[in-house]
Amino acid sequence: MNWRARLLALDGMMPGMDDTGGLAWTTLADAPEDAELVFLGFDDGRACFAAVPPQGDAGPRLANPAVWQAMAALSPDDLAIYGGARSLVDWHARHRYCPNCGGNTKLAKGGWQRNCESCGAPHFPRTDPVTIMLVEHDGKLLLGRGLGWPEGRYSTLAGFVEPGESIEEAVAREVLEETGVRVSNVTYVASQPWPFPSQLMLGCHGYGDNEDITLDTTELADAGWYSREDVGAALEGNGPFIAPPPQAIANHLLRWWMER
Amino acid sequence: MNWRARLLALDGMMPGMDDTGGLAWTTLADAPEDAELVFLGFDDGRACFAAVPPQGDAGPRLANPAVWQAMAALSPDDLAIYGGARSLVDWHARHRYCPNCGGNTKLAKGGWQRNCESCGAPHFPRTDPVTIMLVEHDGKLLLGRGLGWPEGRYSTLAGFVEPGESIEEAVAREVLEETGVRVSNVTYVASQPWPFPSQLMLGCHGYGDNEDITLDTTELADAGWYSREDVGAALEGNGPFIAPPPQAIANHLLRWWMER
Repeated sequence: MNWRARLLALDGMMPGMDDTGGLAWTTLADAPEDAELVFLGFDDGRACFAAVPPQGDAGPRLANPAVWQAMAALSPDDLAIYGGARSLVDWHARHRYCPNCGGNTKLAKGGWQRNCESCGAPHFPRTDPVTIMLVEHDGKLLLGRGLGWPEGRYSTLAGFVEPGESIEEAVAREVLEETGVRVSNVTYVASQPWPFPSQLMLGCHGYGDNEDITLDTTELADAGWYSREDVGAALEGNGPFIAPPPQAIANHLLRWWMER
Repeated sequence: MNWRARLLALDGMMPGMDDTGGLAWTTLADAPEDAELVFLGFDDGRACFAAVPPQGDAGPRLANPAVWQAMAALSPDDLAIYGGARSLVDWHARHRYCPNCGGNTKLAKGGWQRNCESCGAPHFPRTDPVTIMLVEHDGKLLLGRGLGWPEGRYSTLAGFVEPGESIEEAVAREVLEETGVRVSNVTYVASQPWPFPSQLMLGCHGYGDNEDITLDTTELADAGWYSREDVGAALEGNGPFIAPPPQAIANHLLRWWMER
């Protein structure tokens, strides 16, 4: 065993923190004897690993406020390491069986693959592309409130890209389905990985062709148009709605729109 | 059974074609009695379905030249329908078992979900984001030839987005890994779904910081820099390399770069 290797400290799916507020690391000796290890990469010449936990995180995304607190506390570099590691070990924990034949799968290639021991099918960690969009009409932004969100919280609409769609088609379909607003002239703004469980957020901007909203109440609790003043005040913490937190790409998109 | 419903004709994973060169459709009566049906959407008020075949397509991507011929023959609308349907039925055929517990899964929500009959875990069709990039240095483009490609064929480099990466980070990592070229100033150009099996191609442009190439021979057979004249001639069919076919986003990216 390489004494220079180190193991990311995880409590279930939560990051362990050291005294300075950074990610805590231990040694490979701290991993359970039968744990599968995922290779995360090298840092200062030391190989970094994370252990696959007995169970994945099947619960609702981000239900745990402690995750938000940890994300706010971590540096961008530590957040990137934690995010990638969390996505990977969670995927491994939920893919111990082959979806093709039901056989047992085994970690391979340092954790960037699992192979079926029965039918031989290879399986790869998944990354789910999700569109998230600024939709603008007459200088106002279309924002919505998801089902079960805290009172007053509004954000940009978002939705998974479906098989057979481009990013631009997914933006238009999702906004039309959720609010009845037709969107054109979609452009890409920025992307961000979001490890709950393994999303690639694709931030876009588009123009709404109509202002009237027909809400899909199975997806959204509310949606409405907000002025530049509304959004600016919300980002300052004293607007007509609670803005998305700074770590979320939605917050970045709102700031991008304000500075545009 | 609704007489207005129709079933996409598939021969394995290949599209059936009608006399006019369009996608062939039959009726639900033509589906095997025990076939799982995926709902594709409505077309002119008629519900459209595709049947999940006994086996998915585990072979190498696009190994079958007949697929390329069919893709060249189909209209853009038909190609979009075939692409989305192919991705979905292939995913269903390869996900009859739960990766979480090994139990049997059952098609749900018209084919946009499978649920495990043992542990209850829901599973969703996957879409894999893949970066594909124009890398430019001193007015020349970095193009490569994959292992096993036909002699003379060159295209833009490409690679899967890994967990924890943004699009821009994935572009830079992939190009550095495959060729040793460092990339900066990455911008997004266009996206395209690519149903072999379920990729979302993310077309980008970036600038190479160095010209010297260190080839990763486990990924590429060759890579080199090509001038505007080279690329223009190749797109006309008489250049120093064989350009990617018109249906591929790589071809679109090369044309975008020429017109820039």
